Amino acid sequence: MAVYLDHAATTPLRDEARDAWLAASALIGNASSIHGDGQAARRLLEESRERLAAVVECDPIEVVFTSGGTEATNLALKGLWWSRRQDTEVVVLPDGEHHATLDAVEWLEKNEGARIRAVPLDDVGRIDGDAFAAALDGAAWATALVANNEVGTINDAAALAAAAATVQTPLHLDAVAAFGHVPVSFRAWRSEAPAAAGLVALSVSGHKIGAPVGTGALVVARTASLTPLLHGGGQQRRLRAGTQDVAGAAALAAAAECARAEMAGEAARVGALRDDLVARVRRELPDVELLGDPVDRLPGNAHLHVPGASGETLLFLLDVAGVSVSTGSACQAGVAEPSHVVQALGRPELEAREVIRVSLGRTSTPADVEAFAAAFPAAVARARAAR
Amino acid sequence: MAVYLDHAATTPLRDEARDAWLAASALIGNASSIHGDGQAARRLLEESRERLAAVVECDPIEVVFTSGGTEATNLALKGLWWSRRQDTEVVVLPDGEHHATLDAVEWLEKNEGARIRAVPLDDVGRIDGDAFAAALDGAAWATALVANNEVGTINDAAALAAAAATVQTPLHLDAVAAFGHVPVSFRAWRSEAPAAAGLVALSVSGHKIGAPVGTGALVVARTASLTPLLHGGGQQRRLRAGTQDVAGAAALAAAAECARAEMAGEAARVGALRDDLVARVRRELPDVELLGDPVDRLPGNAHLHVPGASGETLLFLLDVAGVSVSTGSACQAGVAEPSHVVQALGRPELEAREVIRVSLGRTSTPADVEAFAAAFPAAVARARAAR
Repeated sequence: MAVYLDHAATTPLRDEARDAWLAASALIGNASSIHGDGQAARRLLEESRERLAAVVECDPIEVVFTSGGTEATNLALKGLWWSRRQDTEVVVLPDGEHHATLDAVEWLEKNEGARIRAVPLDDVGRIDGDAFAAALDGAAWATALVANNEVGTINDAAALAAAAATVQTPLHLDAVAAFGHVPVSFRAWRSEAPAAAGLVALSVSGHKIGAPVGTGALVVARTASLTPLLHGGGQQRRLRAGTQDVAGAAALAAAAECARAEMAGEAARVGALRDDLVARVRRELPDVELLGDPVDRLPGNAHLHVPGASGETLLFLLDVAGVSVSTGSACQAGVAEPSHVVQALGRPELEAREVIRVSLGRTSTPADVEAFAAAFPAAVARARAAR
Repeated sequence: MAVYLDHAATTPLRDEARDAWLAASALIGNASSIHGDGQAARRLLEESRERLAAVVECDPIEVVFTSGGTEATNLALKGLWWSRRQDTEVVVLPDGEHHATLDAVEWLEKNEGARIRAVPLDDVGRIDGDAFAAALDGAAWATALVANNEVGTINDAAALAAAAATVQTPLHLDAVAAFGHVPVSFRAWRSEAPAAAGLVALSVSGHKIGAPVGTGALVVARTASLTPLLHGGGQQRRLRAGTQDVAGAAALAAAAECARAEMAGEAARVGALRDDLVARVRRELPDVELLGDPVDRLPGNAHLHVPGASGETLLFLLDVAGVSVSTGSACQAGVAEPSHVVQALGRPELEAREVIRVSLGRTSTPADVEAFAAAFPAAVARARAAR
């Protein structure tokens, strides 16, 4: 197996999540069925909902299980759009959001009449809080990343939520990259907003924290109004129809609990590995930059700008050397485009093609850092020569 | 464990599907990542797509994996709506469709301007072919069940598809109840329609055939135009964004192959068990009717009308006796409503509350039939007395 340094794209399934999935899969019964078999499935589903709610810090009824982060974000953004007050078409969109958000908003703009009010990032990738607050008034909704999935910068979610609550604009937070790695609390961030606005929805994904791919959730405030994407049976407060994936829910809850239990220790351990990796790189190659906030960033994230080297070429050369990294969001990795996030930091398009994202995780070891540090200088030299 | 006779709601996970899921879950890598780990996941994903395509008889590129049947049907109906020719608002909706269809169409009607052209069922629950053909002209799309999930009647999908092709109306077939139990062939049914109309989309679900809950697919013809429900990464022909669930896809392919391999034998075996069950019931209770087509029906389906007994009461009494059945679609089973399908057969509302669906499957045995036949008369007597 390769030296896997792409944990931000997906991270290995946890044993606890696999075991929970297997145990739940042995149950027979649709959680919507009235009979005893169905009710046994239902109990496990609701117990899983309670456990996930305890980790994300919301009420159990606020957890809407989805097929992942992309569905959760699409449900939030389209659902809030369709159920909005009818007197506004403005949506507040920071630069540098994930493609699930960007592409959903683009569709709303092209087909549903939404008008985008953009909010800039600063030069480390943080959402400009003043500009965000100024953009909120009268908007149908606003959205924001809790932590940027490419450069790893952590936003001040509490401040963004407080600003949204002040002007009673519904806010969605995309916590896919943050959840399980840094503190996420729906209740704390929502505390300023008892009504149907302020923080109303928050997306999380399973496979970024060691739960199976195909699991995730949208936390939806009790008071929020949201049009479903999937209509059918009346499951999950009628917000998300479809036979409920009890095994996936149980596995997600198990992984979330593990991630929370380990969070402080892993943040320190993985952060130290990451710092060592960056230090080694910069010792050999002093002109390599760490992009994103140097301090307030995801513990496993090292986002490197390598002047004069194509990120895509680096990715290929490192792959040949047995090291797996990314140029950015895996969702777009098949397409060689300059990073829109790096451009949102104020960098020119050329530099937005000279980046790689090295992301460490639960299974990362000092040996992985060693292997990366050993392979990287040669890869950079070849990539620079190839330019 | 109870005597489980609710296989139409969900059926136990197959060993082959579980093993495929476990093997795939041990891989590390996002199928959209460029590096070797990602490409290994990608190969397994595409192999699974090919295997499922071979079973449903379509081209691999036409398989769009979803989180299940409800998502597949919503994607088809809303996606075809949003990408339709702009000169029509009419959609063709047979009576007695599944709630995923009904509720999606109701939303399109209330919020997107769709106008419903209804098509009646005959008294055994079959879509009226002449009325269906007559309704198609100029419609944005039509939809139809391959087999009715409540009463089990199998429609003439080939004829419905041919009628749609003749007038070049896009057709979606909901094969969730049929797939894996009776022959389903996207290619054969589509043969009349080389262009962007006729049969263009077909929904299947995993957990009805022994794959995990949370798996399914929409087959989308190469030539069809379809707006995605989930925007984001460009996965799956840009028709369904989101990190692809390789393990789910592998498990779905494994279950589909097993179901096809067993189909003829199981149809005979399960059909004989079902016939025995119905015969025993009618010997004891001659006024109990088998609803739906007596011949062209799903092998495991026994849909019983019990005059003078509430279906809901029967379900509870049988549950107490250790037998799990349903009053109809599990998705609505939490709500005590009269069956819209039974009403579509021309039955009054009272009779639509006097039905239970007994559904047999892969794990059903003569002992299950015995247990049901032993418990049923007493349950009926008590349910009638309670009325």
